[in-house]
Amino acid sequence: MNEFELIAKLTASLSSNPAVVTGVGDDCAVLDVGAPGRRLLFKTDAIVEGIHFLPTADPRKIGHKALGRCLSDIAAMGGRPLAALITLALPSNFDVPFVSAIYDGMNALARRYGVAIVGGETTTNPERMLISVSMLGECSNGILRSGAKSGDAIFVTGELGGSILGKHLEFEPRVAEGQWLAEHFPIHAMIDISDGLVNDLRHILKASGVGAELLAKSIPVSPAARQRCSKVAPLWGRPPVCRFQEPLAPWTPTDFGAAPAHKRACGSVPINASAPETPLMAALGDGEDFELLLCVSGKQAVPLLDAWKKQFPALRLTCIGKIRSEPGLSLRDKTGIHTLESHGYVHFA
Amino acid sequence: MNEFELIAKLTASLSSNPAVVTGVGDDCAVLDVGAPGRRLLFKTDAIVEGIHFLPTADPRKIGHKALGRCLSDIAAMGGRPLAALITLALPSNFDVPFVSAIYDGMNALARRYGVAIVGGETTTNPERMLISVSMLGECSNGILRSGAKSGDAIFVTGELGGSILGKHLEFEPRVAEGQWLAEHFPIHAMIDISDGLVNDLRHILKASGVGAELLAKSIPVSPAARQRCSKVAPLWGRPPVCRFQEPLAPWTPTDFGAAPAHKRACGSVPINASAPETPLMAALGDGEDFELLLCVSGKQAVPLLDAWKKQFPALRLTCIGKIRSEPGLSLRDKTGIHTLESHGYVHFA
Repeated sequence: MNEFELIAKLTASLSSNPAVVTGVGDDCAVLDVGAPGRRLLFKTDAIVEGIHFLPTADPRKIGHKALGRCLSDIAAMGGRPLAALITLALPSNFDVPFVSAIYDGMNALARRYGVAIVGGETTTNPERMLISVSMLGECSNGILRSGAKSGDAIFVTGELGGSILGKHLEFEPRVAEGQWLAEHFPIHAMIDISDGLVNDLRHILKASGVGAELLAKSIPVSPAARQRCSKVAPLWGRPPVCRFQEPLAPWTPTDFGAAPAHKRACGSVPINASAPETPLMAALGDGEDFELLLCVSGKQAVPLLDAWKKQFPALRLTCIGKIRSEPGLSLRDKTGIHTLESHGYVHFA
Repeated sequence: MNEFELIAKLTASLSSNPAVVTGVGDDCAVLDVGAPGRRLLFKTDAIVEGIHFLPTADPRKIGHKALGRCLSDIAAMGGRPLAALITLALPSNFDVPFVSAIYDGMNALARRYGVAIVGGETTTNPERMLISVSMLGECSNGILRSGAKSGDAIFVTGELGGSILGKHLEFEPRVAEGQWLAEHFPIHAMIDISDGLVNDLRHILKASGVGAELLAKSIPVSPAARQRCSKVAPLWGRPPVCRFQEPLAPWTPTDFGAAPAHKRACGSVPINASAPETPLMAALGDGEDFELLLCVSGKQAVPLLDAWKKQFPALRLTCIGKIRSEPGLSLRDKTGIHTLESHGYVHFA
């Protein structure tokens, strides 16, 4: 039973009440707590030493990542973050300056987005550090995953792939961008890219009951995705064929602990026999880019791009494909249309 | 550096914003999110395998405890629980029926108190299970720890001590009682007993800038506290003197992992060389009773007791002492007044 099957089993029949607008299954839960014109967003996310970060990582960046992941989920709903609680589960030999620096990293990011850190707790997790963050935000309605419609244009912010080389610890959550999108355009569906473009797009497709076609040459491949593949090439050779119909490499930044030793990250450069075969595959399959993936009606595509360039001139927004009514996900390149069967990273798959 | 010193260091300068009514330092954070006449309560709590529960425990009870601890904190603010998020950090060899039964235990308790479980996440924690729960509640104002005044009567619900023998996995969070108290009496200060009566009372005293005197013969010692001491007696003998001025045994239900092997719980009966010397000491020092500890003006003491007996005839409410202006905490028994220097359990002390 993999992570998604387990979640489906556990969440099949959960306790609910009238305050719940949207429960399990989106980036955040949406609640109505009686505040006129506002809805509350509620989210939790944990990072684990050896899984989501190495103990040798800069502790400020660990803190940044812990808080930033929740901020990215608030952003994906078009929300404004309000308050966070921090749970630190620490091994017995924890180092006080290291833990303080983690808090410094969280605090710096929290201040940048006006989030109050209002408490939390410390507990013991003898073998490794675990940091869990809970966050509250607010929005007018909340952009769900479930509103994508046939004919929608699919957009992504920034560039994708290779975040293991550094971005997974340094990414800027797209909080300002998410709020701007929610306020200025009728966004049909949005999600943040944590499990990888293909996997997170599948979440939108499943929730919306639609399919999609991506255009290979439009995918914004990051320099890190190219660097990651070039690092691997001298050791294992570049594969002759790009086999899109086979599973993409499931190795992502969240894989440190689960991967066999030869696949583990070593310092900041991953030694990874299963690295993606091409930079495009890294952009499609790598996780933890924390960019926004969104769907908007085809008619809004050009106005959105024009307005975006004025508002966020330093950040790319790219149309990478379109929603179609037929289920499934395919990739069009110069050789034809390929079915994408692959998944991103799945915990304990 | 112990747990409380670490928390003080980490929370010395946290990011804040105008939504925060009460941040770090109470049972829950209190937020104003624009809902007229309501304030929001926000809390997180984690339990760790081998620390807060043994892997041999009934999984339904593990789930009950995980959710119940947060409910107890909402109760201690006089609040009404609304919604919860569940983080399951699972070892690689987790057992699906076991995890499902944990969720069953959480769901049953959530339904009893009208709490919606609105999501969460699963992640990997290779060596042991960790369950973190975040909870939202609401209240009109929120009863803090900081309002105790000289002359207040100190009350406690239920009976105390020995929860390691079972109650720590089966306790009923005092949600109904906390709401009733908040609605019917001007409660000056309230907390739930998780770290032990003495330790949690100290939290109230510190936050309120006052001291207290407890009356030994009034402390409601539970049958489990007596049983726990009698189990130890045949092995190590009953100590001749009750030394209140020495530290109480710091061993509590939260001690499984940290204690040396000879102190660890064995099945459901603890084999514990450091068990409290008397049932009274167990009642004063043991953690995880999850009863409510509250302060109300002396004039309200008798009306409160009378009303309580009608409302909750099956649950004791006991006046155990009084708040005084002089700092410190003392215990009066037939031999005189003894200063209580002791603490409850402190993680990584």
